[in-house]
Amino acid sequence: MAYELYYWDGIQGRGEFVRLALEEAGAEYIDVARQSGHAMGTGAMLELMKSKHEPHIPFAPPFLKDGDLIVSHVANILFYLGPKLGLAPPDEKLRYVANGLQLTITDLVAEVHDTHHPIATSLYYADQKDEAKARSAAFIKERIPKFLGYFEQVLQQNPGGPTHIVGDKLSHVDLSLFQVIEGLRYAFPKAMKTYMSNYPGLTALRDTVGKRPNIAAYLRSDRRLAFNEDGIFRHYPELDLAP
Amino acid sequence: MAYELYYWDGIQGRGEFVRLALEEAGAEYIDVARQSGHAMGTGAMLELMKSKHEPHIPFAPPFLKDGDLIVSHVANILFYLGPKLGLAPPDEKLRYVANGLQLTITDLVAEVHDTHHPIATSLYYADQKDEAKARSAAFIKERIPKFLGYFEQVLQQNPGGPTHIVGDKLSHVDLSLFQVIEGLRYAFPKAMKTYMSNYPGLTALRDTVGKRPNIAAYLRSDRRLAFNEDGIFRHYPELDLAP
Repeated sequence: MAYELYYWDGIQGRGEFVRLALEEAGAEYIDVARQSGHAMGTGAMLELMKSKHEPHIPFAPPFLKDGDLIVSHVANILFYLGPKLGLAPPDEKLRYVANGLQLTITDLVAEVHDTHHPIATSLYYADQKDEAKARSAAFIKERIPKFLGYFEQVLQQNPGGPTHIVGDKLSHVDLSLFQVIEGLRYAFPKAMKTYMSNYPGLTALRDTVGKRPNIAAYLRSDRRLAFNEDGIFRHYPELDLAP
Repeated sequence: MAYELYYWDGIQGRGEFVRLALEEAGAEYIDVARQSGHAMGTGAMLELMKSKHEPHIPFAPPFLKDGDLIVSHVANILFYLGPKLGLAPPDEKLRYVANGLQLTITDLVAEVHDTHHPIATSLYYADQKDEAKARSAAFIKERIPKFLGYFEQVLQQNPGGPTHIVGDKLSHVDLSLFQVIEGLRYAFPKAMKTYMSNYPGLTALRDTVGKRPNIAAYLRSDRRLAFNEDGIFRHYPELDLAP
């Protein structure tokens, strides 16, 4: 049975981390909010979230339905799917290492979101622009190098070799790192142009993942939406400061 | 062998969610940064984080060392410890439900942190007080009821009964919900006084957890630090707005 992925239509957002894993593995899945028809579309997603009958409703998209089970949160979905898709380390202990790295990516993504929404998700960007500028400046100066420097060190110290972030073969964390680098390059091209040369391991990882046949085919397909200013990674020239 | 918990000394912070699980289970553990002696204290924690030899360094505390394995991030630690401490649902599928709920708590805790640090973690609270006021106002008005309303609904719809958030016995998520409610009551007493009557299930869960013998003994012990204004849940009267 196909996996059902539930995420907002029109943006890559957090759903993209799950899509990349499903696409790399060639798994059968339905991107529910992007389909039309019975029990499909955004309406069906919202209905499920508000359901009074579901035993375990999710707080927010993305979530994955596998038969009766609903699994919510990106890192949790990838922890669940990893072994099924051949994208988790075979050593069970390393799966907790992978999950720790995935959760560090989760934190980075939340900080990226808050660069354009530092005061309230319910307000427009235009209504928190000054605060967004201050938060972006700190994010670019302090947080990007802190996160990327960390991932580079983990890569370089990986006992399985610096081609992968954990173990000696591709995992969901490598795919997510690819997405984070692409997203940061879209949102903050000035800073990333300067920074990336400091991170040869991450640069190579990004290139390797982007060239994998299933990923490359997905990126060319119309299933891959473009980055845009409704998503998590947004390019606002006024926030794109030089580091 | 005793578990080693690594977390900043002097605050409950994110480490407290792990402590509550270890204390409830009566597990042997060393709170490394709070100890003195060889390979103990905050210095030992920082050294481990910067190690050039460790195969898998963590990004930030808290992290748990179990023999050679380092597990980082609260939800990951609790996912790992849950079955060992008898605090995870026996049904493996429900463990992913538990982890999804735990990660929703993680998100809530990150939002609580940003009520007093909306612009940058590197700046003092005093330097982002106006923005903190704006963010707190939105958090109190929109986010507290959204999160607590969600948890209340999950409790009430739990097929295992509304005494626990998942399954029909105590899990690490129940303990974490206790901590979140205590923290919110400390930080935002005005709002919580108004809100809690809307959430009878959560109120009962909080009372039940607080009375468990091991938890009650822990709360009375000097291992339980008081909430304070260096932690995640801070009480600043100017942010404690009526909802």
